[in-house]
Amino acid sequence: MSVIRERMTALGLVPAAALKLPPGVTLPFPWVRVVGERVLVSGHGPTEADGSLAEPRGRVGAEVTLEQARHAARLTALAILGSLERELGDLDRIGAWVRAFGMVNVAPGFDRMPDVINGFTEVIVDVFGHEVGDHARSAVGMAALPFGIPVEIEAELVLRS
Amino acid sequence: MSVIRERMTALGLVPAAALKLPPGVTLPFPWVRVVGERVLVSGHGPTEADGSLAEPRGRVGAEVTLEQARHAARLTALAILGSLERELGDLDRIGAWVRAFGMVNVAPGFDRMPDVINGFTEVIVDVFGHEVGDHARSAVGMAALPFGIPVEIEAELVLRS
Amino acid sequence: MSVIRERMTALGLVPAAALKLPPGVTLPFPWVRVVGERVLVSGHGPTEADGSLAEPRGRVGAEVTLEQARHAARLTALAILGSLERELGDLDRIGAWVRAFGMVNVAPGFDRMPDVINGFTEVIVDVFGHEVGDHARSAVGMAALPFGIPVEIEAELVLRS
Repeated sequence: MSVIRERMTALGLVPAAALKLPPGVTLPFPWVRVVGERVLVSGHGPTEADGSLAEPRGRVGAEVTLEQARHAARLTALAILGSLERELGDLDRIGAWVRAFGMVNVAPGFDRMPDVINGFTEVIVDVFGHEVGDHARSAVGMAALPFGIPVEIEAELVLRS
Repeated sequence: MSVIRERMTALGLVPAAALKLPPGVTLPFPWVRVVGERVLVSGHGPTEADGSLAEPRGRVGAEVTLEQARHAARLTALAILGSLERELGDLDRIGAWVRAFGMVNVAPGFDRMPDVINGFTEVIVDVFGHEVGDHARSAVGMAALPFGIPVEIEAELVLRS
Repeated sequence: MSVIRERMTALGLVPAAALKLPPGVTLPFPWVRVVGERVLVSGHGPTEADGSLAEPRGRVGAEVTLEQARHAARLTALAILGSLERELGDLDRIGAWVRAFGMVNVAPGFDRMPDVINGFTEVIVDVFGHEVGDHARSAVGMAALPFGIPVEIEAELVLRS
């Protein structure tokens, strides 16, 4: 059995099912693009385990609190891990996380984006450890995110050679 | 003759001329940076075929409509293809699209960035097909873009080996 | 002695000390992530030579002027060079700059982000020359940056092979 999947189970974490898009929405691009050893992850938002968009939605600092946003970043990690598992077959194929770009949908005056995106980083480091899981990171405030999601993260990894 | 250029011609698409910068503006960086097999594309905005900045400019959801912004994203694809052709000599050298980061200049309340950036993705997939043209993608809302352009896209590709 | 460090000294430039985080803040990610030949740089803001956050902070076009922001972008280059030197041991190991993503904390109506980020690009090109120092670049307006910093830049480089 997959070592990474076992560690996730031990931590009570489950990769999310594929995103259920709102009716009428089609996305003409892949969630994960593999080019040679490189694995590029499209911007993901927070979903429930069944792939439905997580609530609450809105701007952090207004409709969404810091703690809710931090939880949304954890859910975003599980959404990304779900996409990676579907694309790669086995999360053990991941050799290293490289980069994560953390975007927070902010209300005026909110600037604690690092606290929010830590929810994502903590999941990745808990599951993969520092040697594989560490990633260069930015955590910044956006004027808007699709479907009013509070957090969106894009990432890059490399496969084990 | 270039296979990709022929397909563009068949689709009625023409790569744009180099951007005519507004007077007094100098940009101390290249539009395309090639490092080994990797091709990094600086943020491009929408231009007319002659390289002049396309109108209308402004925020999507206010001065610019969704349909105009979607067209701007198509023009941005042609601006990027123009820069790539000038740098690479021949678009057939492109082995794979890797990533596109789609930025939309949004007015408060507008969050249909994926619909806007689909204008870009559709051009790339029409011209290159899914195997080469697919790319990991984010489509997000910015507080401002240079010169008031409604759309800006940066991208990465790899050369055919 | 390092060729790059000598050139910096001749230009009167000094890499900054590590960022002194505000009390109570921990960042669970590395400032620089090296994966094979690739060097990914997390989002950095402007610091003084001793690693304290540079003033003024706030939005460009409101609390911070264009000239102050341009200087902040220069300081951000020195912060990044400090992180690179600590991680790599010697800046001469850098083979090429690849990409810089320049983010500006904007007040409504400000859109001269390229003028701001030129402060960064000019330092890099002055120190490394065009062949090594050139980079694909975007310069865009954000709704918020952490700690109210006016500028944040993430980057990618490759090591000399």
